[in-house]
Amino acid sequence: MDDPAGAEAPHHGYSHAKDAHLKRLRRIEGQVRGLQRMVDEDQYCIDVLTQVSAATKALQQVALGLLEEHLSHCVVDAARRGGPEAEEKVREASAAIARLVRS
Amino acid sequence: MDDPAGAEAPHHGYSHAKDAHLKRLRRIEGQVRGLQRMVDEDQYCIDVLTQVSAATKALQQVALGLLEEHLSHCVVDAARRGGPEAEEKVREASAAIARLVRS
Amino acid sequence: MDDPAGAEAPHHGYSHAKDAHLKRLRRIEGQVRGLQRMVDEDQYCIDVLTQVSAATKALQQVALGLLEEHLSHCVVDAARRGGPEAEEKVREASAAIARLVRS
Amino acid sequence: MDDPAGAEAPHHGYSHAKDAHLKRLRRIEGQVRGLQRMVDEDQYCIDVLTQVSAATKALQQVALGLLEEHLSHCVVDAARRGGPEAEEKVREASAAIARLVRS
Repeated sequence: MDDPAGAEAPHHGYSHAKDAHLKRLRRIEGQVRGLQRMVDEDQYCIDVLTQVSAATKALQQVALGLLEEHLSHCVVDAARRGGPEAEEKVREASAAIARLVRS
Repeated sequence: MDDPAGAEAPHHGYSHAKDAHLKRLRRIEGQVRGLQRMVDEDQYCIDVLTQVSAATKALQQVALGLLEEHLSHCVVDAARRGGPEAEEKVREASAAIARLVRS
Repeated sequence: MDDPAGAEAPHHGYSHAKDAHLKRLRRIEGQVRGLQRMVDEDQYCIDVLTQVSAATKALQQVALGLLEEHLSHCVVDAARRGGPEAEEKVREASAAIARLVRS
Repeated sequence: MDDPAGAEAPHHGYSHAKDAHLKRLRRIEGQVRGLQRMVDEDQYCIDVLTQVSAATKALQQVALGLLEEHLSHCVVDAARRGGPEAEEKVREASAAIARLVRS
């Protein structure tokens, strides 16, 4: 999607797979709405918990995909350009991995 | 919410905290829609990943709340009634905990 | 194992499965020593990481077993005895589950 | 540590931090032995569970350190050398991250 000023949208690792990510995220939105219905209808706790785990796994899948694309584009490109930028990209990616592991 | 046939809705551990759970789930729905906007606007991968971890943690919070309520109502009540039902409730809860730990 | 003073050792949910837990923990000890050897021998990072994940999963398995036994004995027994003790046992178990989910 | 045949030991991302990793792993070995003592002495389930979570977190810390070093050395160096090797290193790292997230 281009910027309003017509400048070309910034290109990131996931840009080529944008539609696939958006599709997954819309499905997860549907799962979360489904959870609201289950709670509203007083469905059994364990059944609600099963769906919470499913939505959590789906979010994780999105994160792992974004991370692989970030490594293979943003980090690899920065490494090829040389200089300190690659080190910063690795630091950022490692902090994101730590957040993911702990969430 | 009562069944259409007017019969009283089944009562579960989380029923007394239903509004709080629904409020959290609506917020998570908003977070997932926010993720769609970030991806659609080609925002930086690491920023999107940070928000995915936040949404994952929020889902985990819902799960931990539901689990505590299930233990303190459904499992404790079944234990007090005696008989094999408590064992089944514990088995179910343990399987839900395992799914949560691995998601 | 009885106390030195001959008093009977306190009985917990996992007491009947003590040997199985000790066996698993000794195996995990061996896995951690194996990790030390891999690092000492400069083995490839990814291979070391694979074994770290295996040891982490093994620890999780021990935790899930201990938790199920705690629920089906300590929590259920406290519930059957009635009074506020069950609520405290559930609170403790829920805090342990939260630590497990976030580790 | 050099190979017996005197050839220089292969150099990986973590080689410069080997002693720190070995120190952490020896501490984790001690934690796992401590868990064995707790179980052997019939200590309270929740206390054992608390220590299992601590050992799991310590293992995670080792993994996150190894991963950052792998990214900043093995992946960045492969990217600088150009060619398909970088893609394979990223694929391997992403699979290791997925295992870590799911363990």
